[in-house]
This record gives sequence, structure tokens and C-alpha cells, in this order.
Amino acid sequence: MSLIDLYSDTKTVPTEAMRAAMAAAKVGDEQMDEDPTTRALCERVAMELGFEAAVFMPSGTMCNLVATLVHTRPGDELIADAQSHICTTEGAGAAAIAGVAINPVFTRDGIFTADECRAAIRAPSRTAPRSSMVSIEQTTNFSGGAVWPLDALRGVRDASLDAGLRTHMDGARLFNACVATGLTPKTYAEGWDSAWVDFSKGLGCPFGAVLCGDRDFIGEAWTWKYRLGGAMRQSGILAAAALYALDHHVARLAVDHANAALFIELLGETPYFVFDKTSPTTNVILFKLQGLPVDTATFTGRALERGVRLRALADGRMRATTHLGVTRDEMLTAVRILNDLAREFAANAA
Amino acid sequence: MSLIDLYSDTKTVPTEAMRAAMAAAKVGDEQMDEDPTTRALCERVAMELGFEAAVFMPSGTMCNLVATLVHTRPGDELIADAQSHICTTEGAGAAAIAGVAINPVFTRDGIFTADECRAAIRAPSRTAPRSSMVSIEQTTNFSGGAVWPLDALRGVRDASLDAGLRTHMDGARLFNACVATGLTPKTYAEGWDSAWVDFSKGLGCPFGAVLCGDRDFIGEAWTWKYRLGGAMRQSGILAAAALYALDHHVARLAVDHANAALFIELLGETPYFVFDKTSPTTNVILFKLQGLPVDTATFTGRALERGVRLRALADGRMRATTHLGVTRDEMLTAVRILNDLAREFAANAA
Amino acid sequence: MSLIDLYSDTKTVPTEAMRAAMAAAKVGDEQMDEDPTTRALCERVAMELGFEAAVFMPSGTMCNLVATLVHTRPGDELIADAQSHICTTEGAGAAAIAGVAINPVFTRDGIFTADECRAAIRAPSRTAPRSSMVSIEQTTNFSGGAVWPLDALRGVRDASLDAGLRTHMDGARLFNACVATGLTPKTYAEGWDSAWVDFSKGLGCPFGAVLCGDRDFIGEAWTWKYRLGGAMRQSGILAAAALYALDHHVARLAVDHANAALFIELLGETPYFVFDKTSPTTNVILFKLQGLPVDTATFTGRALERGVRLRALADGRMRATTHLGVTRDEMLTAVRILNDLAREFAANAA
Amino acid sequence: MSLIDLYSDTKTVPTEAMRAAMAAAKVGDEQMDEDPTTRALCERVAMELGFEAAVFMPSGTMCNLVATLVHTRPGDELIADAQSHICTTEGAGAAAIAGVAINPVFTRDGIFTADECRAAIRAPSRTAPRSSMVSIEQTTNFSGGAVWPLDALRGVRDASLDAGLRTHMDGARLFNACVATGLTPKTYAEGWDSAWVDFSKGLGCPFGAVLCGDRDFIGEAWTWKYRLGGAMRQSGILAAAALYALDHHVARLAVDHANAALFIELLGETPYFVFDKTSPTTNVILFKLQGLPVDTATFTGRALERGVRLRALADGRMRATTHLGVTRDEMLTAVRILNDLAREFAANAA
Repeated sequence: MSLIDLYSDTKTVPTEAMRAAMAAAKVGDEQMDEDPTTRALCERVAMELGFEAAVFMPSGTMCNLVATLVHTRPGDELIADAQSHICTTEGAGAAAIAGVAINPVFTRDGIFTADECRAAIRAPSRTAPRSSMVSIEQTTNFSGGAVWPLDALRGVRDASLDAGLRTHMDGARLFNACVATGLTPKTYAEGWDSAWVDFSKGLGCPFGAVLCGDRDFIGEAWTWKYRLGGAMRQSGILAAAALYALDHHVARLAVDHANAALFIELLGETPYFVFDKTSPTTNVILFKLQGLPVDTATFTGRALERGVRLRALADGRMRATTHLGVTRDEMLTAVRILNDLAREFAANAA
Repeated sequence: MSLIDLYSDTKTVPTEAMRAAMAAAKVGDEQMDEDPTTRALCERVAMELGFEAAVFMPSGTMCNLVATLVHTRPGDELIADAQSHICTTEGAGAAAIAGVAINPVFTRDGIFTADECRAAIRAPSRTAPRSSMVSIEQTTNFSGGAVWPLDALRGVRDASLDAGLRTHMDGARLFNACVATGLTPKTYAEGWDSAWVDFSKGLGCPFGAVLCGDRDFIGEAWTWKYRLGGAMRQSGILAAAALYALDHHVARLAVDHANAALFIELLGETPYFVFDKTSPTTNVILFKLQGLPVDTATFTGRALERGVRLRALADGRMRATTHLGVTRDEMLTAVRILNDLAREFAANAA
Repeated sequence: MSLIDLYSDTKTVPTEAMRAAMAAAKVGDEQMDEDPTTRALCERVAMELGFEAAVFMPSGTMCNLVATLVHTRPGDELIADAQSHICTTEGAGAAAIAGVAINPVFTRDGIFTADECRAAIRAPSRTAPRSSMVSIEQTTNFSGGAVWPLDALRGVRDASLDAGLRTHMDGARLFNACVATGLTPKTYAEGWDSAWVDFSKGLGCPFGAVLCGDRDFIGEAWTWKYRLGGAMRQSGILAAAALYALDHHVARLAVDHANAALFIELLGETPYFVFDKTSPTTNVILFKLQGLPVDTATFTGRALERGVRLRALADGRMRATTHLGVTRDEMLTAVRILNDLAREFAANAA
Repeated sequence: MSLIDLYSDTKTVPTEAMRAAMAAAKVGDEQMDEDPTTRALCERVAMELGFEAAVFMPSGTMCNLVATLVHTRPGDELIADAQSHICTTEGAGAAAIAGVAINPVFTRDGIFTADECRAAIRAPSRTAPRSSMVSIEQTTNFSGGAVWPLDALRGVRDASLDAGLRTHMDGARLFNACVATGLTPKTYAEGWDSAWVDFSKGLGCPFGAVLCGDRDFIGEAWTWKYRLGGAMRQSGILAAAALYALDHHVARLAVDHANAALFIELLGETPYFVFDKTSPTTNVILFKLQGLPVDTATFTGRALERGVRLRALADGRMRATTHLGVTRDEMLTAVRILNDLAREFAANAA
């Protein structure tokens, strides 16, 4: 029995065709801007997102960290959703490395309003942290893959810019938003000071992300990338995978979204699962157990024994993520296993 | 007309007797532990709070910062009330200088429960900030001078210690709590890893605070005090004021508390003020206007013109603080001025 | 005319066989220790260098930075040669990110003695930086590829350990030292707290380095790797290249060393070049012009026009580096071009 | 027998007249710019040094730290003499708190040339630390109280400004330089971006220093002063001492210089002491033993037993400092004690 791995879309492995693209990549020394494939990738992503310039990074975490380092100074404060990756899953890097505090906004689905943003901006004073940056996630990762509606996104952007803040978009799953709504990356990213996309998630590359901004921003970003140890050499090997993914793995995200919707629908046939639904559904699913005499850790442990890996979150919820490594048939199998497991727990309780 | 300054208890100026004590102080080089008056002060405060050792600091802000620097490492996270001084009024120093994030707890009056504390402690992982410290304020400054009840205080302390966190008490107004409840500083500080008291607030000294902990903690605190530029030389001048205050200005805090209660009672005779009441009342009063066609900034501006200074907070509330620089008669005058002003605004609106 | 690129051994590009190894790599999620090829690489390097554990990093710069972050606390000081990479070419990352000062030792060839090390260790005090780490380079990069003799290396190690310092070896070119002397990596790394080797230089991989230490060190290193944004996903693609290099590209470093010796010998046939010679010669060559009416920038610019790329250092010297991308015949061509160029400058001056 | 304390000029204690000035000081809340005496002090020092604005600090260490924080960003590098206070005696605060590396210049007496400064400025690149600040000491503390000649001072200033660096003067003993040469503080400080003077050393105040710069610089300095915990309340108590010192303790520094010259002359009558002489002599004396079978620690320990305290430096030298706490007669006594002690050691060796 092979594992149906819904833990994360980072579990995707490169396909044969992507491996062939990597093996054939033209390469040079990336630190000196001499890697032609990395240059081509950066130019393409900058163009698709509507920015002047871009830089290749080993991870999305480094994109968030470098953007924070460039947009702020120590003692500043950034505003972000309390469940966002930058708050919960980057080892407090904003504080540890950039010296920046986070003023968290508490939301249901990772999306906040312009008014909530304005309320989080502190009045200038000698003693308060200096509000200098806002960061949002498109789509919202630990808040269920919700898509920021364009007007909400622009409301937060404008409220921030009006107050002199720099605006940053964590677009780890920006392409999922685009495929779900039909809007372009450029439309979403318009007017933001920086934005990035990740290639290691639904796009199926080994790793790598591209951070975009204007030329000055990218110049400073390069300094920090180097200082952090993120400068590479013949990175064209990975950039070739990313270029392949842009050509072949974007449109197919619709399959992942359909699989997620199917999962929600079919698990809904038993009464044991409660979902944090978003509209549209993308590839991230959050849900809880209800009415079962079992905790999340036990349930996910038993599911794993039967071949389905879910992610147990700290707050008692579970996350399932669809991606190119899981087919529709496997989703059907996963649903059957999880429903059966829930029924058994219910039967034992009776 | 002299100003009745309720802006803050930091407005107190040294009395003649305190000035005489300063002028007569025996002094030496504090950086080399040769200032006898500073040594006497540190020994006394350590004893009163029940700690092994103590160090004199130029400010309470430095006490909080140094405790954070000693208790944590960059990338750690501390838990504190969202309105506490360390969150809102220290220039994000925890992030900027210690590299530490803050996980804020949202409360009504600055007091949180052991369960809320436990919920804020993150499960250990490679990627989450590492929860390593809890900080509470006794009394709660921007949350209305509320006194942490002993059982709540110990509940948070024990929940934190059980999870391996270091525990820190910002006791800027610890003596106010003691006078209000009759409990000793030692009772409140028992079992905490560090605690400090401020001498520049209700105790009426020019400036200075004393931070307590065990010997290792104070040894490390000295290193950071020096590095931050907080090491002084003949600090006995100030320590003499602090020793004078311990002898003469602690019991009289009861007068400030009575004045605060009087203020609340008498302003309550008009319908224009709504109070965040605490029990017991100490020397901090939070209140809002109601039913008046005027905003807080205008109201406090007009009150100042008539000789009463209040502090307008960012959220629309006002703060008044009683202290040894304001007599009962002046409180009665202040009440009359504020009630008259409110009545005039109401009349104009009618 | 194709470029003979002696700028750096980082210019190497993967061979066809190495590309095939990458394309065939078994991969998983490295952040969760699920990438089998990366695990195999780390185990192998740890074993070859004699350490308990190891972690894969995107760059040698991150290895130095992470080791500094784990071995020290902010306010500490590390001891290193003034021309070492950590001093001159890492963007002051030790200070910027780890909060650590560097006490530089000035040497001729990057190698210092146990006595020089002891002299650089500060006596403990409240006010001095705390000496807590020593870092050496094997071989010495900007000091001419010199090999630390084993007794000098162990002398510095023991002087440091005796004083309670942690010991770190930047082994970017450790395999060059081993090939030049016949000693094993384990012999050189014995007793050091951490050491790393780079795969992007003479070993010909796209990028990547492996940092070794004991289990606790590597556990902490992982936390910082993640926080810095250095955690990857399917990094087995790169690890496969590194494993290939360990099998096929180590012994052949002897060819690079022979080519470097040839370069020194044949350029010595004209009187225009003065060399910083080391014994044994490895793959880094430092030299200056003499008796020519031309500065280094002009000379290297003209050399580049004729197809030979050298690196002009800030102090007026030039660096040439031999590597698997340059054959013996190309070295002969490079020598001819450089000697001719020097003769022309000399003739013009006459 | 009372101690003749030549350890440091920080050992001075306030005189009766200075204590009276402190006791009579008019005070207010310094954090809100409401302390009239502190304001008067800052205005006076700014005027005397020729700057737009100034801020009162608890220590000279905080002046150096805050200037570094304002003039630089993390990853920058500052240039300073290797024996200067900022390098050796501030707990690596520049790295720990500002994230800034130091590129040390090695000198005989703390004074370096414009050429040495230019050589220490790194060429801009993505990978090198960014040279952004120069810091000099007037007079040079651990290098023997040497006075920077005006042309050397301006040469370094201009070399730095030409390269875009910010220029900072640690003027802990600037008044000593002025009294020794007859030049004004304004003449020395002209064209520097920041400078400060200390009141706790030869000027005899308990503690405190004033940092000067333009208005923007001082605005930012206030933010960092607050963040570090250096903001005080009724600091007028100390500012009154500083104003008293400006009126009564500056011209008398000539006495300290004469006492230092006397010390050198009379100790020179035995052959056992070798001096690092400077011209002019100010109040700091560096010397070594010669021809005696005793190490520095033992010698200073025995001198202390007989009533003379010297400071043993880490490199085997001793430092004596003259100040208002030591009279000419006491200097004569100290000389006699030290010469006798040296003779006894010599006799024992014979």
C-alpha cells in the first residue's frame, strides 16, 4: 500500500519530465548573475507579477525574511494575520534576525479588512513600536487556503500605503488563487511593494521561490540573501524545474481544487467531520472531528497506519492538502478510509 | 493656577527631605560594586522581594529588556498581555534588541488565566517560535491599575514553570498592589525568576528601578546593563532617594488609592464618564466619555487649559493617575473642573 | 574563443555524469528528514569527517553563520584570520545576524599560532566582549590556499578549548588540503566542535555544503537553518550531485594542484609576476604585478578581453584558481596570454 | 591611610558645592522634554560643541551605542582604533545590539591617519561588510590620553565623509584635549556628524553624558535611548551637577595634567618605569615595569596594599589617571610609594 500523502503540497516530487528539464539546464554562477536559466526565471516571474525585478531564493521563508529585512529597521512592527506562516512557522525570524515585532490580527480565515489593518497601525511616538509593514498570504495557509477577494486585498494595501507602510504579499500559493478565480498574478500583485511565489508546493519543484519588487528593493534583497547564506551557484538546475512548472503545472492546479472539493463533499456524507469551508475552495482543507470519542492525534495516527497522512494542527484541527502527487482515485480511497475509520470509532463508542 | 497633573505618576518630583537624603549620600563607583548606598538599596529590595540578588537600573524599561535578554535567546517568544508596557511602550525593544517575539494575550484588565497562558505556549518544533518566558504586570498599567489576585498570579507562574518557561514580573507598581491588598512584595514575587520595582512612579524618586533574581541571573543582567549603557558611577545619589522612599513613601500610597476612588465616585455624579473599574482601586483610572459631542483629544485639551492634565490613550480612553504630587483638595478641584467641562459640552450640544 | 575562467573554483558546472545522477535521485521532504539521498550524504560526510551528525546547507556562508549562531550568544566575540571569508566576504553576517564581534588575527597566509590565538582571547570581564569561538579556514582562501599544518591546527584547537572556546573549521576546501598532504578529513577535523565541506567549489556541484557537529549542535543548527530560510524540500537532487562528487571528484583535485604549480612555474619565466607561494601549492594562487606600468584592474580587464579571467582583490593582488573546468592545455594557453600581455605592457613602457 | 585612587577618573565623587547644586535643581519629566535643567544642559553642550541639538544619556557607552544605531544598519562596519573603548570595553555592543562589525585600525597611541582610514574602508560589494561609520576618541583612553592633532582629526573626518561614512567622536575626555591645547570643543567637533562629552570622568559628576548631532540624528537617538531603557524622569538632578561642572571643573583639568606630568617626571628618577609618553600629556598615563622580577598584577596588588590604586591592563601595562580627587601632595606621596616599592623588588632580586 503506497501512502496517500495529504500532509502538505510540499510533498510533491519532480516528475520525469521536470527531471529531464533540470538535467538539460544551462547554468552559470548565480551569485554573479551569470546563470542564464535563473535569470530567465526571474525575468519571467517579475513580468507575470508585474514587477521590475526579481531574485531566486532557496525558500519562501527566506522570501518573507528578506522582505522584512529590506522593508523595515529594528524596532519596527509588521502587521499580519495571527495564523500566518510568518507568525507561527518561521521560528520568530522577523524578531530574531530583523529585530521586528509582529502586531497580529485575529481573523477567522486569514483575511482582514482595511479597518482592522488601520486599527493595528500604531500612532507614531517615541515609545511605541513603529508600524512599517503589512504582510498578507494569498492564499491563506493555516487558515484554510482562503482566497483574498481583490477588493479586500486592495483595501488593506491602500490603508497601509496611506499610513506609509510597506506592503508585502506572501504568494506561496498565489497561483492557486489565480486558477481558482481566473484573475492574473499581476492583478493581485498590483501596487504591492513586494510579492513572491513558491515552486516547491503545488507546482512540484524540489525547492525554490522567486521574490519580486522594484530594482532598489531587489538590490537590497540580494545583499541580505548573500548575508543569510542564500546565494547559490549553478542554481539553473532548479530554475529549469521552475520554468517547466510555469509551463506545465499551473493550469492543472484546478485538478487539486476539484479534488479538495470532492474530499469535503464525500467526507460530509458521514456526520463526523466539520469543515472550515472557503469560497472558492483551493487545495487546503481544514476540518475537525465531531461526536467521536477520539482526539486528533490518535485519529491522524490511525489514519496514517491505514495509508492516509493528514497534518494535525496545534489547535485540534486537521489539515489536508491536495497536490499533483495525489490523483482523484487516491482521493476517493482516502475518503473511504477516513469515513470508515470515523465509523469504527463511533461504533466503539456506542 | 498651578497644574493638577494626573497624566502619570512619573510626574512626581522629589520632596525637600528626599533632596536632602540625596545630597548627603555616600557614594562610590557603582560599576565596580563600590557604591555603598546603591549596594544597600539592592540588598534591601532583594530582601523585601525575597530574591538572592538585585541590580540598580536607570529605568523600568531597562529592567524588562535586560530580563528578556537574560531569560531568552533570539528566536524565542514571550507571553504578555497585549496592552502591557513591554508590548506597547518599549519601542519593540524585545524584538529589536533581544530578537524575541511576543505572543500577546488579549484581556479586559491585563490579567489572564493559567489556561490562557497554557494556550499561548507553543508546542516545541523546529519551525515555531520557542515559548520561553512569561511577563506580567503588577499592577496592570494601561489596563487600569488592576491588581493580579494571588491565585491568578500563581496559576500563571505555575503553568509557565511547568512548561519550562522563565517567569518575569514587571512590578513597576508592585507596592501599590501591596498597599491595596495588605500582602507583602515577597508574597507576590515568590517563585518568580525575576521581578522589579520602580522608584520613579508613586514613590517619588527622580528615576531608577531595581531588578531582582538569583545570583546567576543578576550576574548576566550586569553584563547586559553594561552593554546597553546602563552602568552608572556614583549612583548612590539616586539610591539614597530610593531608600528614603522605601521608608517614607510606601504606606502613603493608600492616600493615592483613596484619591482615585474619590475621583471615580465624584465624577460619577454626572452621567458623562464611564469607568473601567477594578477592585481594589489603585492609583490608575481609565475612563471614557459618554453622551458628549466631543472627542477625547478635544476634551483633554480643554481640561489642560483649565489646569487638569489627563492622558488620552490611543483607543479613545483617558487615563488619570494619582500620586504624591496631587492632594485630596486638588482632586476635588480636578473633579469640579472636569464635571463642569462635561456639563458645558452637554449644554452646547442641547 | 572560449573563456578560461580562473576567477574561482565556484565556476565549475556539473558534468553530464553528475547531471545524470541528479536526474535519477530518490527524493523526499528534507525539512522532515524524509529525503533519502540527503540523509545518505549527511551520514557519509559525518562519517568521513568523524562527527556524530550533519546537516545539508545551501551554502558555505550559511554553514559559517549557523555555526556562529549555535556556538555563541550576542555580545560574544570570535577569533579568525583578518582575511578569512567570515571576516571579509559574508556581509558582516556574524555581527548582523548573530550579534557577534570578530577579533581579527593578522597573518601572512591565513595561518596563526596557538600563541597568537591565546593573545586574542580576552580576559573575562563584565565589559569586554566574551571570547567564545575560534574559526579557521582549511585551506586559506584569500590567503593563497595555504594548508594549515596539522600541528598548527591542533595548537589553535587546544589553546581555544583550554580557554573554553568553541572551535569551528571552515573546510570549504578541506578536500584540497587532504589531497595535497595525504591526510584524511577525519585527521584534520578531529576534536573540532564543528566543520563543513563545500560541494560547489573544486568538487563541481551546483551548490550545497554539509555542516558537521555533535547531535545537539546539529539539532540547534537545524533550528537556525529553518529560521534563516535554508530549509529545502526535495534536496536529494543536489545531494545526489554531492555523493557523485565524493566518489569521482576528490582524487582529481591533484590535477588542479599540478595545474596551479605549472602556472606559477611558467609565469615565473617572465619577471613580471610575484607570487605568494605556499607549500604545498593547492588550487589557489595569489600574485602581484611588478615592474609594469599598469594597475591590476587594467591588467585583469585586458586579460579578460583575451580570454583569461582572473580575480582582482581589493589590495592590489590577483587571484587565480584552478578547478575541473580548466584543463592543463588551457592553463598553458592562459600562461602564454598573460606572459604576452605583460611583455607588451613592458615594451610600451620602454 | 586614605586610598590614592589613580585607577580611573571615574572615581571622582561630587563635591559639596556640586551636591548643593543637585539638591536645588528644578526638575520635570525628561522623557517628555519637561525637565528644565536637562534642557538647559543639552542646549549649552550643543552650543559649546557647535551642534543643532543634544540629548542627555546615562553613560558614554550609551552615547557610542546610540550613535552607532542611528548612523548604521545591521551588516555595516565601523572603523575605530583597536584599543578604543568601543572595541574593547563595551561588551561588543556594536555587534550585539546594532549588528555592526568593527574594522580595527592598529595604532601606537590611538591616532590614525587619513590614509589608514581610507585603507580600512571596504570597496562596495554585495558580499563585503558595508563601511558606514568612523569613530575616534579624543583623547585616546587606553592609548595613553593622547590628543588627536587637529589636522589628523580633520584628515580622518574628510577621508570618511568623502567615502560617504558618518563620523562620530567619542569625546569622553574632549575637555581634557581642549585644556591641554587651548582649542575649543567647537573647533575639534566641527564637521563631525556626532560627538559627546562625559561628565562622570574628570568633570566629577556622579554620571551622565551628552550626545550631540543635528536635529534628525537627535530625534532618532531619542527613540533608541528610550528603547534601550536610557530615558529618565527628573534627570535635572544630574544635569544640575553637569552644569556646575561646566562652570567650575573644566579649567582645573590643567591641574590634573600637571599632576600627570609630575608623576612621569618623578617616577623617571628610578630606572624601573617605562612610559608611553604623549605630547601634550593629559590625565592618562600608561607605563610598564622594566628590570624588576615581578609581574604587573603583583606590583599593582602590592601598591594597593600601600595605598595607591593603579589599573593593570590586559597587555601587561599599567594605567594611572589623575583627577580632581587626587591632590599634588597625594601625587608626590604616590610617587614615593611606587619608587620605594620598585627599589625593594630590585633589592630582593639582587
